[in-house]
Amino acid sequence: MSFKIIHKDTNCKARIAELKTRNGIVKTPVFMPVGTQAAVKALPPFALEQMGVEILLSNAYHLYLRPGTDLIKSAGGLHKFMAWSKPILTDSGGFQVFSLAVLRKVTEQGIYFQSHIDGSSHFLGPKQVLNIQKDLGSDICMVLDECAAYPCDYDYANAAMQRTINWAKLSAELKKTQGNLVFGIVQGSTYHDLREKCARELVEMDFDGYAVGGVSVGEPAELIYKIIAHTLNFLPENKPRYIMGMGMPEDILESIGNGADMFDCIIPTRHGRTGSAFTSSGRINLRNAAYISDFMPVDPECNCYCCANFSRAYIRHLFNAKEILGLELLSLHNVYFYINLIKNIRKAISENKFLEFKQNFLDKYQKINNTYTQA
Amino acid sequence: MSFKIIHKDTNCKARIAELKTRNGIVKTPVFMPVGTQAAVKALPPFALEQMGVEILLSNAYHLYLRPGTDLIKSAGGLHKFMAWSKPILTDSGGFQVFSLAVLRKVTEQGIYFQSHIDGSSHFLGPKQVLNIQKDLGSDICMVLDECAAYPCDYDYANAAMQRTINWAKLSAELKKTQGNLVFGIVQGSTYHDLREKCARELVEMDFDGYAVGGVSVGEPAELIYKIIAHTLNFLPENKPRYIMGMGMPEDILESIGNGADMFDCIIPTRHGRTGSAFTSSGRINLRNAAYISDFMPVDPECNCYCCANFSRAYIRHLFNAKEILGLELLSLHNVYFYINLIKNIRKAISENKFLEFKQNFLDKYQKINNTYTQA
Repeated sequence: MSFKIIHKDTNCKARIAELKTRNGIVKTPVFMPVGTQAAVKALPPFALEQMGVEILLSNAYHLYLRPGTDLIKSAGGLHKFMAWSKPILTDSGGFQVFSLAVLRKVTEQGIYFQSHIDGSSHFLGPKQVLNIQKDLGSDICMVLDECAAYPCDYDYANAAMQRTINWAKLSAELKKTQGNLVFGIVQGSTYHDLREKCARELVEMDFDGYAVGGVSVGEPAELIYKIIAHTLNFLPENKPRYIMGMGMPEDILESIGNGADMFDCIIPTRHGRTGSAFTSSGRINLRNAAYISDFMPVDPECNCYCCANFSRAYIRHLFNAKEILGLELLSLHNVYFYINLIKNIRKAISENKFLEFKQNFLDKYQKINNTYTQA
Repeated sequence: MSFKIIHKDTNCKARIAELKTRNGIVKTPVFMPVGTQAAVKALPPFALEQMGVEILLSNAYHLYLRPGTDLIKSAGGLHKFMAWSKPILTDSGGFQVFSLAVLRKVTEQGIYFQSHIDGSSHFLGPKQVLNIQKDLGSDICMVLDECAAYPCDYDYANAAMQRTINWAKLSAELKKTQGNLVFGIVQGSTYHDLREKCARELVEMDFDGYAVGGVSVGEPAELIYKIIAHTLNFLPENKPRYIMGMGMPEDILESIGNGADMFDCIIPTRHGRTGSAFTSSGRINLRNAAYISDFMPVDPECNCYCCANFSRAYIRHLFNAKEILGLELLSLHNVYFYINLIKNIRKAISENKFLEFKQNFLDKYQKINNTYTQA
């Protein structure tokens, strides 16, 4: 078995575990910084390693289109290409093909589409996306799924879910020769019965892990939480559970309490590029005039390179003067904030104190009342 | 004495020396990466320290306008503000006020101008620029000068040179209470007699070092070389000689052979941001299709982080996909290339082999015939 539960919090469903991959063991719960195009935006690999990142996420759709699967294969695989020797999970691109590409036709075999980069025509089916990920040398491959937009009527959600199941069946066959871990993805939009059906059928196929897809696509937070909690009920204890594209710190805490193990999100780097900083007292935007002569670190409780060396006033100056260094330092801080949060969560679970930790974190974090607009 | 000559090459005017400043000793010849706005573009201080950068250049005009001298003073000075504990040289802003600002009036007292950022009105005279640099906590301050544009007629060059001398006289008085090193700047455009006169008069004023200003402002390389060689003749042996804003590797080699000690230039970082890389075989642009599947390091002879870990194909992909990491890695490589070149030059001088080193470097470097368009 590639997944080993180390400890379950005695007061909730949170657990710590180890996921074994070809390129190393990942401790869960885990946050995976996003390197869509074979690079985490503005952050070199050594900075990620230094702050304790254990696994990165990249994207098959993006890499297939640019620079191309063959090129990365010639380079010796994605790990070598981007100089990252630890595990990599690649998304299949199901989400991207439905959100970025110009869709031509969805069939039972797969998706005909035009590249969002140059308009060229392509076809991706369940087999193609797994082959791409095999060529990339992914440690964890995601199957092709159809991610329905929100809101979505029941009939379309049902049809998309059924296609997702059919594609998963083909993927489960291919998995036997894949040589790396393959995760299934539960779809079903906001409909409880569809989510349940999809989860139950996927579990029959015995994937190495299960993801909840089609969340954080525009629904209100309360609805996301309900769908995730509901879906997690049907995913097996002894496999990793991955909530795709999630999320804000409070979202991650909520899902871990419901038994989720893996997360990825562009938020820490995207926010970092706009001057928005995560702190233990909440999120602040350093471009605000309030920070002009604030010589405190971005987060006084943080030990990252940015907080150990620079002030809010300096970071604000960098953004104000359009210095690239500003977004580098703030991206670094934000990713560190997530990695450190997850580290603390693992510790709390190991002491059966996850619920207490969550409450304390949120009490402090929500002191600054900030609204979140999904990027 | 703050300047100590360690060794003179027996075959030319090149020398190695040590310049003592409040924040440490700088070995010369030295290349100073440029951090105009209190940040070297895209490079965090630890990366600069790791590659052996000994001194940075920043700019009084820019910092005075944004974020403001008072703010940096409140932050504990420029070193603390930007987290750089080693020496900093600040340019007075003479060059910037003539090239960036909207000039209102140049008088014997100084310059009335409007900010290039917000149009606000300001006055800077010799006293003001030294006070700003004192408040910033510069290790090496540059006096206010008038940098004439190229081409420039004799009468204007003469008048600007005379104002530069008058301002230098006032600066030399203030220097006594400055508490840090103050360098004079030789002007005189491309006129040999004006350069000589300016140099002779400044030397009388006994500055801590002498800069050749008003070069690399658009003249052909041959003319720059002549003016610099001519001017250096009138600068004392026992003081550091600084060629402002220079230059390409071949320019630096030429000037060191004529006895120059200090250099600064935006070229390595600016080129890095456009995909242009310095290599031991010449300059290459990684955006070119030729590098699509070139899995060699940017420079196979380089030991920087970028060359140790990434390929030309990867860097090209990053530029192609507009990933910020591309320009970070290439800026890092280019600055490292300069720092390493200077390190090798110091070693060659110590062995009386500078001329041989220069020839070998150029023979190899000029293999790729690349044209240089001043940025």
